[in-house]
Amino acid sequence: YSETMTQGRATTPVSVPESVSLAVVDGWWRAANYLSVGQIYLLDNPLMQRPLAAADIKPRLLGHWGTTPALNLVYAHLNRVILQRDLDVIYIAGPGHGGPGMVANGYLDGTYSELYSDISEDREGLRKLFRQFSFPGGIPSHASPETPGSIHEGGELGYSVVHAYGAALDNPDLVVACVVGDGEAETATLAASWHLNKFLNPATDGAVLPILNLNGYKIANPSFLARIPEAELLELFRGYGYSPRMVAGGFDGEDPMKTHQRFAEALELALDDIAAIQKDAREAGQTVRPMWPLLILKTPKGWTGPKVVDGLPVENTWRAHQVPLAGVRQNPEHLAELQAWLESYRPDELFDAEGKLVAELQVNRPLGSRRMSSNPHANGGLLMKSLCLPTLESNAVDISDGRGALAEPTRVLGGWLRDVLTENPDNFRVFGPDETASNRLDDVYDVTAKAWQGEVLPTDENLSHDGKVIEVLSENLTQGLLEGYLLTGRHGLFSSYEAFIHVVDSMFNQYAKWLDSSADVEWRRPVASFNYLLSSHVWRQDHNGFSHQDPGFLDHVVNKRASIVRIYLPADANSLLVTASHCLRSKNYVNVIVAGKQPSPTFLSIDEARAHGARGLSIWDWAGTEVAGEEPDVVVACAGDVPTLEAMAAVQILKKEIPELRVRFINVVDLMRLQDSTEHPHGLTSDAFDALFTPDKPVIFAFHGYPALVHRLTYRRTNHRNIHVRGFNERGTTTTPFDMLMMNDLDRYRLVMDVIRRVPKLEKTYAPLSQRMDDE
Amino acid sequence: YSETMTQGRATTPVSVPESVSLAVVDGWWRAANYLSVGQIYLLDNPLMQRPLAAADIKPRLLGHWGTTPALNLVYAHLNRVILQRDLDVIYIAGPGHGGPGMVANGYLDGTYSELYSDISEDREGLRKLFRQFSFPGGIPSHASPETPGSIHEGGELGYSVVHAYGAALDNPDLVVACVVGDGEAETATLAASWHLNKFLNPATDGAVLPILNLNGYKIANPSFLARIPEAELLELFRGYGYSPRMVAGGFDGEDPMKTHQRFAEALELALDDIAAIQKDAREAGQTVRPMWPLLILKTPKGWTGPKVVDGLPVENTWRAHQVPLAGVRQNPEHLAELQAWLESYRPDELFDAEGKLVAELQVNRPLGSRRMSSNPHANGGLLMKSLCLPTLESNAVDISDGRGALAEPTRVLGGWLRDVLTENPDNFRVFGPDETASNRLDDVYDVTAKAWQGEVLPTDENLSHDGKVIEVLSENLTQGLLEGYLLTGRHGLFSSYEAFIHVVDSMFNQYAKWLDSSADVEWRRPVASFNYLLSSHVWRQDHNGFSHQDPGFLDHVVNKRASIVRIYLPADANSLLVTASHCLRSKNYVNVIVAGKQPSPTFLSIDEARAHGARGLSIWDWAGTEVAGEEPDVVVACAGDVPTLEAMAAVQILKKEIPELRVRFINVVDLMRLQDSTEHPHGLTSDAFDALFTPDKPVIFAFHGYPALVHRLTYRRTNHRNIHVRGFNERGTTTTPFDMLMMNDLDRYRLVMDVIRRVPKLEKTYAPLSQRMDDE
Ligand SMILES: Cc1ncc(C[n+]2csc(CCOP(=O)(O)OP(=O)(O)O)c2C)c(N)n1
Ligand SMILES: Cc1ncc(C[n+]2csc(CCOP(=O)(O)OP(=O)(O)O)c2C)c(N)n1
Ligand SMILES: [Mg+2]
Ligand SMILES: [Mg+2]
Repeated sequence: YSETMTQGRATTPVSVPESVSLAVVDGWWRAANYLSVGQIYLLDNPLMQRPLAAADIKPRLLGHWGTTPALNLVYAHLNRVILQRDLDVIYIAGPGHGGPGMVANGYLDGTYSELYSDISEDREGLRKLFRQFSFPGGIPSHASPETPGSIHEGGELGYSVVHAYGAALDNPDLVVACVVGDGEAETATLAASWHLNKFLNPATDGAVLPILNLNGYKIANPSFLARIPEAELLELFRGYGYSPRMVAGGFDGEDPMKTHQRFAEALELALDDIAAIQKDAREAGQTVRPMWPLLILKTPKGWTGPKVVDGLPVENTWRAHQVPLAGVRQNPEHLAELQAWLESYRPDELFDAEGKLVAELQVNRPLGSRRMSSNPHANGGLLMKSLCLPTLESNAVDISDGRGALAEPTRVLGGWLRDVLTENPDNFRVFGPDETASNRLDDVYDVTAKAWQGEVLPTDENLSHDGKVIEVLSENLTQGLLEGYLLTGRHGLFSSYEAFIHVVDSMFNQYAKWLDSSADVEWRRPVASFNYLLSSHVWRQDHNGFSHQDPGFLDHVVNKRASIVRIYLPADANSLLVTASHCLRSKNYVNVIVAGKQPSPTFLSIDEARAHGARGLSIWDWAGTEVAGEEPDVVVACAGDVPTLEAMAAVQILKKEIPELRVRFINVVDLMRLQDSTEHPHGLTSDAFDALFTPDKPVIFAFHGYPALVHRLTYRRTNHRNIHVRGFNERGTTTTPFDMLMMNDLDRYRLVMDVIRRVPKLEKTYAPLSQRMDDE
Repeated sequence: YSETMTQGRATTPVSVPESVSLAVVDGWWRAANYLSVGQIYLLDNPLMQRPLAAADIKPRLLGHWGTTPALNLVYAHLNRVILQRDLDVIYIAGPGHGGPGMVANGYLDGTYSELYSDISEDREGLRKLFRQFSFPGGIPSHASPETPGSIHEGGELGYSVVHAYGAALDNPDLVVACVVGDGEAETATLAASWHLNKFLNPATDGAVLPILNLNGYKIANPSFLARIPEAELLELFRGYGYSPRMVAGGFDGEDPMKTHQRFAEALELALDDIAAIQKDAREAGQTVRPMWPLLILKTPKGWTGPKVVDGLPVENTWRAHQVPLAGVRQNPEHLAELQAWLESYRPDELFDAEGKLVAELQVNRPLGSRRMSSNPHANGGLLMKSLCLPTLESNAVDISDGRGALAEPTRVLGGWLRDVLTENPDNFRVFGPDETASNRLDDVYDVTAKAWQGEVLPTDENLSHDGKVIEVLSENLTQGLLEGYLLTGRHGLFSSYEAFIHVVDSMFNQYAKWLDSSADVEWRRPVASFNYLLSSHVWRQDHNGFSHQDPGFLDHVVNKRASIVRIYLPADANSLLVTASHCLRSKNYVNVIVAGKQPSPTFLSIDEARAHGARGLSIWDWAGTEVAGEEPDVVVACAGDVPTLEAMAAVQILKKEIPELRVRFINVVDLMRLQDSTEHPHGLTSDAFDALFTPDKPVIFAFHGYPALVHRLTYRRTNHRNIHVRGFNERGTTTTPFDMLMMNDLDRYRLVMDVIRRVPKLEKTYAPLSQRMDDE
């Protein structure tokens, strides 16, 4: 299969243009390495204008050296080709713990000083640059939001390639260079991500250039991919649909210039391939899925660092992972070794006496926003255009014939999403793990299709090269793609079965933390919110069983900062429309919407739904039995479509059986309204809460999820002791919807019994009714 | 690379032995298909002894047909080779929604009726078998714990291969046949799992035979792997280190006997390969990593089902996924088509008039526990031997010179785990995502190594073919391997960084649900508990940043049933030893232990730690300032190593500054003690709780995780309103440990201020002290 490697692509090395010489690239690389080591070790004396002394060394040595030299090498070379070809490139550093490298390059290209004026391009700036790294009050050790040019932290490993593909979608002129750690490549998400080339449309999407850094090791072990025969490794990547090229260098003391030469050639060829693929698709209308190029850069871990420390080999072993010389402040030998190590980069050739990068190396700086650290795609809010949102009316459910018109909420939403897709053809996408139709959003296929570059058969439906719906059976991939898409300034929605959204708990965590930290970074512009639509939820798993019943994502989400997370439980189709349109307008949040797909009653007109949505929660007086001027006896509250229906049914029974009872009926669509206003921006004030839920009447709360969540959110409320919550109690199986409610004590009869039990006078006077309910 | 496919293995088809003819295998397959369709559709008339009537059809049609015929085919063929070679085989059905198929085969081989005596091998038994499926009060639609022979539910897709490898470890005579869905193969965990062949030691582990069912589709889409050229697919699997063989059949009306013939040959070759690989390793001492066989079975989705329904193609399209004929009860045409479909299996050739499988087909039943549905490995508790647990004394930290001796708790545990490994060389393993040493458990390498079948270099350490430690940079893989290992009757521990354990939230959910349901299945025997050790925790992320700070797994865990989950927060090394030894003895739980790895004081002698562990939480009177015979003024409680240290320091300050204050000091090691005894088996009774935490005194609680969890657990306690919790508030970065405490208000000074604020008399009298604390 050796042809697949180069199928119709450039095969002979392109002559290396002289614009930026490889000597300059090497100088840049040495400068970046120097700055990286400086950040890990130095408190002072940044240019080593005097011999290093113990006092120049940080008291705690933190950071990761091993991954850094390869990250720096790739950066230096990318600058060169950006200049040469006027490319638009962003850089994703899979092993984000190479943070010092990313910072070093951003500093070298001038971006860092532009964004952080105190870190100037001089000796004092260098000193501060070094000091701030992994230092209290300074910057984190990963490629965090504070790092210019980064959309990928890389703290939790595995998401680089999926982020890269998300960034490339609908960005036809962008090249996403993505360095992948060979350890990172063992993670589940990364192993699945390679296949994402099956979505990339060379005509309308940008390119992803994965660069696997085979540095041989992870923290304490060799990596799988570094210890299989080269032939096997190449087969793996051809099997994944790439045309891999391998560059090895830096071993056994080989001159780095040799590696530069080989890597430059391979990079040229890869970029030629990308250009050819895109030309074929864009000019010649080629539609056969191409074999995209992929580079494998095999270099020693911790290359150019100490070879042996305390008698043990370090370079090219796992020992190079973090800080190779650990005792520099105390151990004069280590100090001398550090001095030699830093000097090996010949800093005097790199920086002038004032600490400025020498002019000879500045030629490797791309201009303005072509610098990868300044590229606006990596600060997507800069490029984000708000969506054109169609009105809700044309999709709203008409209830003019009376409340209760049946509709499938997510199907109604699908109609509106179709219109959103029509009006926003280039910057809005729908993602799902093979569940878009199952979740009944399939009206979107009226105007677009599912992206698919593979073979298409006559029996297939809704597959096309430029479809805007992405379906792959991996929640991790759909999550990561949307993250990459949003962080580069676009919009989207991820629909999933409720239970399996836990597959991405950890990715959600990392994304929420990213947003949280980004808010403190002045130059980062807000991006569109991440929108989850969770359907096929716990109460309607008629087809499946216990494994498909889990509403716990909400609990997971509320652990993140209140400034980031929003949870919505629209009770009907119109409320869902209002909620979705609100969410698609919002910025910098993670919105979680839980909605049903089964036919269910529409309670509110679209106007009422708007008013209800604006309030977040409100009294539905038509559903209760309150009388103006009188205190209610009990509050029946609900959140979620199925609980709302049960709560309404319970009130119906109560109305008939205990006509004198005054029931206040409250529906909650914006769950965070329950929390106190001091804890969540959406929270009701204490007074407002008491006015609605009363300071002292029993509240029977029918809740979609685990009951503990409502207690958690209302824990500081005056009436908290009196709030009695029914919800999912982790009892389930394949059974009827009503049986599920019974198993979990959320059915209408149980709610009636709760009311009887909790309203003081009723327990004694309505025992027979309670007994009757129990029999149901 | 075409040789890699068959490297040194049998290449010519072995002649098919006549013991069980392929006609019999085909009969078995038809019978299994018949029973599968029957389960999906039939309420009555199981043998179709009269024409089907609407009343024979279930009112709600639920289930998944598409995946079933291939699952059944593989089962039928495996029976044949088990008989022929006397193999010990378990079967894992990746697409577990093929539940009806697994049940059908278990019924055909007799196991089902042995375990469920009401489902007898006769007409009435058949009727009940059909009726119970996906029926209220019946059995779930997936290969659930109720399904004989299953250790893998397959509801949430992606874990089949990793479970298979977990089952094969240290089971030298076992063959784990693992059918993988081509949709399932897109999931992250599955894509990573193929590489697990790098751990399998052919000398001491069993074999995994993956069988990828390329049926072309998932729910509503083609699968990636079905739409790449065959050459690319084969390269992919060779790149993953397998020797793949592809069998295609069943298309365009081809006679199934042709497929039987081809599949039987491929299966023979694969088993020959396995035998040869094991012989090479076991007899000839071969140590080169072998290319294990892998089968690709390409068949139409929903093969043998309706070809066209309502004018739309069904067989061999995604439409075959669930119930192909949806309107059978209402639509006479559909009813007739169902009749024809069922008749196509020629039931009268399969079952006698009484409903018993005909004798000619019974020859394809392996004997006794060789039947895959009866194989004891799939009911691991049957085989489980308790661990020989070494005493704790030899590893305990000696505090006879006074409390506070510094120790790294996980390192101390590592010493004891080394001894556990020594005494239990064949049924205990340690799993970690490249973090065993980072989490300081590396003393285990004194007696074993890390499993590694790849290339080994002279600089490597602790790698060996038969190492009992498994390290791969994927929490999903380590989780799944341990699940497979436990469910087949062995023991283990998974250590992870605390933050990244969320990567497996969903796998934890599914595993906990499996245990939960298993407890209701009479014939399932208890298995050893799943033990998590979470270290490198939120309070000591000195090297990393915010992305590494997340103690929320505990919140996630408590959503699962109380009968399953246990959480421990030992405050020192000796408590950790006691906890670990308790956990390794326990059965059917998921135990979560959070422990530090940094040097920290040892508070308790090993005997005290035992007493404390037995109590779960207790008053440390030496740490408080209580006076016998007097009520305390305040309770200072704590859980977790860092919070315990802060709480102790706070009490020290209080002792000095407010000598008259009576502080009760309580440490919690078993977190579930906080919950009420009616909610959790470990819960304290209300009286016991009140006796310790008082009914009315302020409680200042220093907690390891998010504060809401303590409120959640103590929510029903008399004194709940008075419990004030400090913990992680989602504030973090790369900073010093103490700064982390300050950022989250968990530092000693804040705790002192809390005491002053909450103890009635102090707020007015100790304002200056409070102010001083605030200045710190
Ligand atoms: C999901 C996850 N698990 C574990 C870790 C801990 N960890 C940090 S770096 C590292 C090794 C990374 O190896 P590799 O990707 O090869 O990067 P390198 O440093 O070699 O470039 C590990 C396991 C992590 N960051 N994320
Ligand atoms: C993690 C996860 N996401 C989504 C689903 C929903 N789902 C159920 S079956 C299925 C398709 C499975 O396709 P495949 O593995 O090819 O099985 P088969 O074709 O044999 O039915 C999907 C997406 C799931 N069960 N698990
Ligand atoms: Mg590496
Ligand atoms: Mg399939």
